[in-house]
Amino acid sequence: MDSAVPPDSNSGLVATTGDDNPISTTAFSLPPITIQKLPHLSDYVANLATLTNPIDRSSFYHPFPGFYLSPSDLILRHIVFDLSSAAAGDGGRFLAYHRAGPRPTIHFDPAAVRAAIVTCGGLCPGLNTVMRELVVGLWDLYGVRQIFGVPSGYRGFYSMEPMKLDPKMVDSWHKRGGTVIATSRGGFDLEKIVDAIEQRGFNQLYVIGGDGTMRGAVKIFREIQRRKLNISITGIPKTVDNDIGIIDRSFGFQTAVEMAQEAINAAHVEAESAVNGIGLVKLMGRSTGHIALYATLSSRVVDCCLIPENDFYLEGKGGLFEFLDQTLKRNGHAVIVVAEGAGQDMIPRTDKQKEEKDESGNPVFLDVGPWLKSELKKWWEQEHPGELFTVKYIDPTYMIRAVPANATDNLYCTLLAHSAIHGVMVGYTGFVSGPINGNYAYIPMEEVAVAQNVVDTKDHKWAWVRSVTNQPDFQKC
Amino acid sequence: MDSAVPPDSNSGLVATTGDDNPISTTAFSLPPITIQKLPHLSDYVANLATLTNPIDRSSFYHPFPGFYLSPSDLILRHIVFDLSSAAAGDGGRFLAYHRAGPRPTIHFDPAAVRAAIVTCGGLCPGLNTVMRELVVGLWDLYGVRQIFGVPSGYRGFYSMEPMKLDPKMVDSWHKRGGTVIATSRGGFDLEKIVDAIEQRGFNQLYVIGGDGTMRGAVKIFREIQRRKLNISITGIPKTVDNDIGIIDRSFGFQTAVEMAQEAINAAHVEAESAVNGIGLVKLMGRSTGHIALYATLSSRVVDCCLIPENDFYLEGKGGLFEFLDQTLKRNGHAVIVVAEGAGQDMIPRTDKQKEEKDESGNPVFLDVGPWLKSELKKWWEQEHPGELFTVKYIDPTYMIRAVPANATDNLYCTLLAHSAIHGVMVGYTGFVSGPINGNYAYIPMEEVAVAQNVVDTKDHKWAWVRSVTNQPDFQKC
Amino acid sequence: MDSAVPPDSNSGLVATTGDDNPISTTAFSLPPITIQKLPHLSDYVANLATLTNPIDRSSFYHPFPGFYLSPSDLILRHIVFDLSSAAAGDGGRFLAYHRAGPRPTIHFDPAAVRAAIVTCGGLCPGLNTVMRELVVGLWDLYGVRQIFGVPSGYRGFYSMEPMKLDPKMVDSWHKRGGTVIATSRGGFDLEKIVDAIEQRGFNQLYVIGGDGTMRGAVKIFREIQRRKLNISITGIPKTVDNDIGIIDRSFGFQTAVEMAQEAINAAHVEAESAVNGIGLVKLMGRSTGHIALYATLSSRVVDCCLIPENDFYLEGKGGLFEFLDQTLKRNGHAVIVVAEGAGQDMIPRTDKQKEEKDESGNPVFLDVGPWLKSELKKWWEQEHPGELFTVKYIDPTYMIRAVPANATDNLYCTLLAHSAIHGVMVGYTGFVSGPINGNYAYIPMEEVAVAQNVVDTKDHKWAWVRSVTNQPDFQKC
Amino acid sequence: MDSAVPPDSNSGLVATTGDDNPISTTAFSLPPITIQKLPHLSDYVANLATLTNPIDRSSFYHPFPGFYLSPSDLILRHIVFDLSSAAAGDGGRFLAYHRAGPRPTIHFDPAAVRAAIVTCGGLCPGLNTVMRELVVGLWDLYGVRQIFGVPSGYRGFYSMEPMKLDPKMVDSWHKRGGTVIATSRGGFDLEKIVDAIEQRGFNQLYVIGGDGTMRGAVKIFREIQRRKLNISITGIPKTVDNDIGIIDRSFGFQTAVEMAQEAINAAHVEAESAVNGIGLVKLMGRSTGHIALYATLSSRVVDCCLIPENDFYLEGKGGLFEFLDQTLKRNGHAVIVVAEGAGQDMIPRTDKQKEEKDESGNPVFLDVGPWLKSELKKWWEQEHPGELFTVKYIDPTYMIRAVPANATDNLYCTLLAHSAIHGVMVGYTGFVSGPINGNYAYIPMEEVAVAQNVVDTKDHKWAWVRSVTNQPDFQKC
Repeated sequence: MDSAVPPDSNSGLVATTGDDNPISTTAFSLPPITIQKLPHLSDYVANLATLTNPIDRSSFYHPFPGFYLSPSDLILRHIVFDLSSAAAGDGGRFLAYHRAGPRPTIHFDPAAVRAAIVTCGGLCPGLNTVMRELVVGLWDLYGVRQIFGVPSGYRGFYSMEPMKLDPKMVDSWHKRGGTVIATSRGGFDLEKIVDAIEQRGFNQLYVIGGDGTMRGAVKIFREIQRRKLNISITGIPKTVDNDIGIIDRSFGFQTAVEMAQEAINAAHVEAESAVNGIGLVKLMGRSTGHIALYATLSSRVVDCCLIPENDFYLEGKGGLFEFLDQTLKRNGHAVIVVAEGAGQDMIPRTDKQKEEKDESGNPVFLDVGPWLKSELKKWWEQEHPGELFTVKYIDPTYMIRAVPANATDNLYCTLLAHSAIHGVMVGYTGFVSGPINGNYAYIPMEEVAVAQNVVDTKDHKWAWVRSVTNQPDFQKC
Repeated sequence: MDSAVPPDSNSGLVATTGDDNPISTTAFSLPPITIQKLPHLSDYVANLATLTNPIDRSSFYHPFPGFYLSPSDLILRHIVFDLSSAAAGDGGRFLAYHRAGPRPTIHFDPAAVRAAIVTCGGLCPGLNTVMRELVVGLWDLYGVRQIFGVPSGYRGFYSMEPMKLDPKMVDSWHKRGGTVIATSRGGFDLEKIVDAIEQRGFNQLYVIGGDGTMRGAVKIFREIQRRKLNISITGIPKTVDNDIGIIDRSFGFQTAVEMAQEAINAAHVEAESAVNGIGLVKLMGRSTGHIALYATLSSRVVDCCLIPENDFYLEGKGGLFEFLDQTLKRNGHAVIVVAEGAGQDMIPRTDKQKEEKDESGNPVFLDVGPWLKSELKKWWEQEHPGELFTVKYIDPTYMIRAVPANATDNLYCTLLAHSAIHGVMVGYTGFVSGPINGNYAYIPMEEVAVAQNVVDTKDHKWAWVRSVTNQPDFQKC
Repeated sequence: MDSAVPPDSNSGLVATTGDDNPISTTAFSLPPITIQKLPHLSDYVANLATLTNPIDRSSFYHPFPGFYLSPSDLILRHIVFDLSSAAAGDGGRFLAYHRAGPRPTIHFDPAAVRAAIVTCGGLCPGLNTVMRELVVGLWDLYGVRQIFGVPSGYRGFYSMEPMKLDPKMVDSWHKRGGTVIATSRGGFDLEKIVDAIEQRGFNQLYVIGGDGTMRGAVKIFREIQRRKLNISITGIPKTVDNDIGIIDRSFGFQTAVEMAQEAINAAHVEAESAVNGIGLVKLMGRSTGHIALYATLSSRVVDCCLIPENDFYLEGKGGLFEFLDQTLKRNGHAVIVVAEGAGQDMIPRTDKQKEEKDESGNPVFLDVGPWLKSELKKWWEQEHPGELFTVKYIDPTYMIRAVPANATDNLYCTLLAHSAIHGVMVGYTGFVSGPINGNYAYIPMEEVAVAQNVVDTKDHKWAWVRSVTNQPDFQKC
Repeated sequence: MDSAVPPDSNSGLVATTGDDNPISTTAFSLPPITIQKLPHLSDYVANLATLTNPIDRSSFYHPFPGFYLSPSDLILRHIVFDLSSAAAGDGGRFLAYHRAGPRPTIHFDPAAVRAAIVTCGGLCPGLNTVMRELVVGLWDLYGVRQIFGVPSGYRGFYSMEPMKLDPKMVDSWHKRGGTVIATSRGGFDLEKIVDAIEQRGFNQLYVIGGDGTMRGAVKIFREIQRRKLNISITGIPKTVDNDIGIIDRSFGFQTAVEMAQEAINAAHVEAESAVNGIGLVKLMGRSTGHIALYATLSSRVVDCCLIPENDFYLEGKGGLFEFLDQTLKRNGHAVIVVAEGAGQDMIPRTDKQKEEKDESGNPVFLDVGPWLKSELKKWWEQEHPGELFTVKYIDPTYMIRAVPANATDNLYCTLLAHSAIHGVMVGYTGFVSGPINGNYAYIPMEEVAVAQNVVDTKDHKWAWVRSVTNQPDFQKC
């Protein structure tokens, strides 16, 4: 049916042709797979405690062979191949990660554990579920009794009293949005933080936050290593935008996509109920358009989805205005979803805005929603003066990120928290838990902190998905 | 940290030890991977039409290298290994499947396509979305104009007039529960169906249904092959219970888990508001407890989850009653989730029920919910006569399965439908689309029709998950 | 346009005809209106404390003329007249009630108040909101600090320790279904209860419960009077069925009607998706069909609504089966809503059921849902043997009554609680608060305890409403 | 208990003192009550058709005495009195209105009816339900078959083709937000509209819109009268803000209050999760703060609610900043709800804004939300430089008004539509239907068009309600 596929010798993939028929490649081999190493307290701490895992203390539980995982339990990361391409794996490198889960032997005495949980940065559905499960999991499974919430982000380590947490207190947290222990941006002072950790006697750190927070956690991890402290640190990536790499997705993302439907539906109703009505919805996503893209694919009523990964233009052949003109003529209305990071280069900056930098030294972020609304109105007045036209603009950001996690995310947050606990109790440190191709694994925190997850618009997956929406590709030709 | 992991020679996995340290296994190799072959019309039809894929006809679209998939695009199925075990892969067999998506060349002339869509069996969230997207995808992407809904399941082929469908008609179907074209059980008459297909000139068949429906579709596929008809058939597995194997999950499942939360929350509230209150929720799942299990893990308030895959018992050491007694003493209330297939062997059958068989010849199914409620009351009256006790029983089945798909499932249904269309247009037949480890693939229908997906209670994944709920394992010892 | 309306001399209404034109009645007079008297502690307690209302202590508040209500603030109860009928008013009696709200002078020293709150009977949306607002209102407005929840209904007075409540503790209760302090049926022992009240020093009693509970509260009220105790008692009627008279509606009712939509929608989807599909929903309402009726009028998809106030029959001319036959022929599906109290006389009783009595000595209640489902199936098999037919039966009771109150009910519960507090602080006792024609009033508890609110099927309001549903009236002729 | 209440002779209320005890006023009399006259086609059209009401044609229906209403069925408007005040009634005037519902005799031959429905102005939950029920009611109850939707508001009469509507077409409209026939502002051209009405042969007009629309409808009504056309017109007031007087509330209002909870909850979560966090929500309401007020009372988490009817100030004793300062100190966070019409006088206007007028010649409306957010930030920076502070601002307007009606509003819209139909079929014209004190009545359109419904902040009802929120009254002293 299709032409032969000569395996690319550079890919390391070796095809086994079944017979002369070029399409009958029936088998192939992968190059050797590298196992990603994880940092462990034993790397620099001598005389670690060694105890039998107490999970099975329950009188209702009887351990059986296979309950515990071992270091030989692995999950493969690169699993999609084009046999004809050199791009297989990660530059020809195939990786496997250690699976997450309980081990038969642990390296923390539960009675000696003092665990600290901190949430940093903006809100994300599921924050409270992760915390609830950290508390309940440590308490019920391992018998830990000293569990603390560090209030208000990194600065809370050195400037506030930690909150003692127990299962009763956190019992209904998973039904609440936000973060009960509060959060804030910034406040990262490495020395003060690690000093405070030592002073308070914390020996397990659960750090929940975005990419900036993860980079901070890596610094704490290195400082802890430098001081040779018997303290394990794990990061739980929190980014409603889903811009963290390696793991399948970040918690809260599915809830955000679900909630975004309400805004898109409202925009659709407003557009449909007007003459030449346009509904415009801005969704979260500065560096990546995952929420915008998934919300678009879920809703089935969006005509055009604009994301940071794909430059767009307004005027001329193949531009947004031409597309909208045709859509309005055909349907009488149109719905546009725009990720907040889209079109930043097109929005004119005042002199003041040109000078301003954000905390990271980048140009300040401009609001694409009102700008696009204004451009649409200008265009219509010029092209169709006197004709009815309406743009209704919706920014549902806080109504999306402040809700409790839905069922899918609650389950995810639960397994994330338990993965983290099992990893920490066994002495791993400087790591992140997360699903890789559907299975929970442990990943070096340093690797996650630099990984990015953006929509690859040159990939056929994106292209195919784009065909679902039937929108312009904004590739001038 | 852990002891060395000697690779099991039977597994075909070959470990590469980095040095003498037993934990430093750093690389390993997989045995050759077999590519699963897909049936294609060219297997038995000569002179297939061959056309350039018309997807890129849109003036807003410019194809780029990599848009189309080829037969060399593969996804690996077995990706989780225990290097120390022979169980890796599927009995040592490693498989790869062809990825789903558009191909550059198609084998149906869109102007000659007459597509038929049929829904069989019970309701499932997302049915209407799948149909909507089949219609919209065929129409918009490939320019197909002859698309029909076959009403009321298999019997509709030979006993009712098909409904002509177009994008305008199906525009808001994804927001409706149920199936607009109606469904029914049974009515499978192979000769009548294939005769009707020929007579009506259908050459693309999209069959949406459960395992029985898939087995019927396989029979139709074989009969079409036998008659050497130029008709492509694809199955879209519909099972809210998620009991279809190979693919990651079935559509509607996430919505069902989400909706089940309402019932569990109500049961929890009823239990908490009473003295010695028990909330009992029966969830769908005859052969498997996926919904019960996922709903339990999502809710965080369930004390015990009973599924068909794990026998349970009521009385004695480690039994349900003992567990409930302790739970009530500790918390004053308890919540139980039971899958409909759990405990079938324990429910006493009347003589009549012993004789009755269902349509497939199996013993009739008994209702575990009222039985368990009654047993609980009997137990309490005997053990704690005169003390307050309440059991509130909720059966939310129809309120779960009749809702529209949520965002996650709507997206999934959309990609399922488009996967199916692309596969059919390119001439594949007798196949099923679905995600394998997160990537959409094509799978032989015959393989899916016999695959099962049940909770493996001997797997450490289950064991670990069980530890989250902290419930009895019902393993007498 | 219409014929003249001679005022009925018996009604006490006197029409003033503007001129000779019979339709130009332009004015009329009402007979004298009686003000309903309220019990007050001063009726039997001498030397009540008298204090200025402390509401205005807040530095942000400045009292103005008209803030406080006085005994001359009244609300009229009978406001709908047929000038031609003797039925105006209540048998010719016109009543006005005292309006609820703060008074300038109170008769309880907040520092000496010990308030007790108890919830009895089944769950109802809004229970927790009422309690929350009792606590917050007493605390914030009047400075009361001794507020207690009596656990588990009436029996809690004499058999359990009261729970001390404060605003922080109850802060989020309005977002929770059920009742945090738990409830139970029965346990009413007048002597034990009043002894316990005296012993614990409670001097304000807030009793939340249904009609049985209200009758109990009247007994407590009389015993308190008999003992000449300086204790004020108020009842807050809780009946999700809305079967309490005089007040406009009971709290939680609107939420129940809202939630019932989910069940009706599911039944509709199931019915529509089948061939000759019937969706059958049983809703709460033993003595009255308010929920069934309102849910039907709200949903617009119900074909027939069966309520206890209107006898129905299955077979023969004008019966349910004939109606369904026509509906199925016309639409292919039908939706039926049945109140749990409908058709009790038609359900066959076993000998055992004939003997059994409930706690009040009435015949035990039978489940109309499964019976009707079974009758429908029998009918179809007899009338249309071999034809497809499906009945899907949904009983959403616990999923309706266990949810938190919606916005409308939350507001209502808030004003109910504050009305009760203001009335008690000013020394009223043996009363109930509630809206009469939209305005909150105080009503003697003894009057409410005997009032009933059933659908009057001989009223033109019902008749008109019935015309909306277009269903049979089951009046044989 | 309270001092005697001397009836104010100016009020027309005459008290009957039972005995010498000053509190024992036991009865009183009202002055004569005026019946509000309704316009009727017979006022200026001779030889109206007169037919028996065809409602009872159904074979399942048997009319009974009392089904039909007559002109002697009345509802009293002024029902709350302060016996001590002259303010009773409407300046001493007591009014009664004719009740809505079917009459035994109608004045339109259903076969000759051509009904037109139009929606004008902004969206409001329930618009589609009203239209659905107009279509279904006219069709099913009266047998009308010529029913049209006029697209896109008033301009649709003379510039677009009407859409023919029937029950099948509108079947699921009540589940959709917006208006299926589209709407627009403006376009009112009296001559063109009435000419078009005559030309198209419409003889029943159902006009759904806000106060501007109602004023337009009054003009059409007068022009129809002037031309002596046998055309009945009725207005159905649509204002999500609930700013229409006389009737209890406008449709969609309860849904809006319900939806506003989502925004308030999100604001609350954002505020709670931050250090010194403020959640700010802007809700609809230009001339009145009903939505803001009801949403506040429903939510129980709002600290301050700002409405147009109550001037507020930011700085100084008793101002918003002082209140927030105390609230933040006490709770760490605060939630503010502001109606869009609040604070208009405080927002600085640019020179351009000073000159701009809206379509009605009023100064253009400024956006209070961003202004208030900015003022809050300025205040904090000045008062608490360097301290953490966050304001999250949410504008949920379109997400509130574009949703379908909830159950309460669906029922309301249904009864509104049926009330309108019954009134029109019987020949009333120039009227509005709506509930007065809970009972549906007919009100002259001219009266409704000038009535306003604003929160009366000098009333004790408001004052009492204000006490629930415990917020500043902004009365400088």
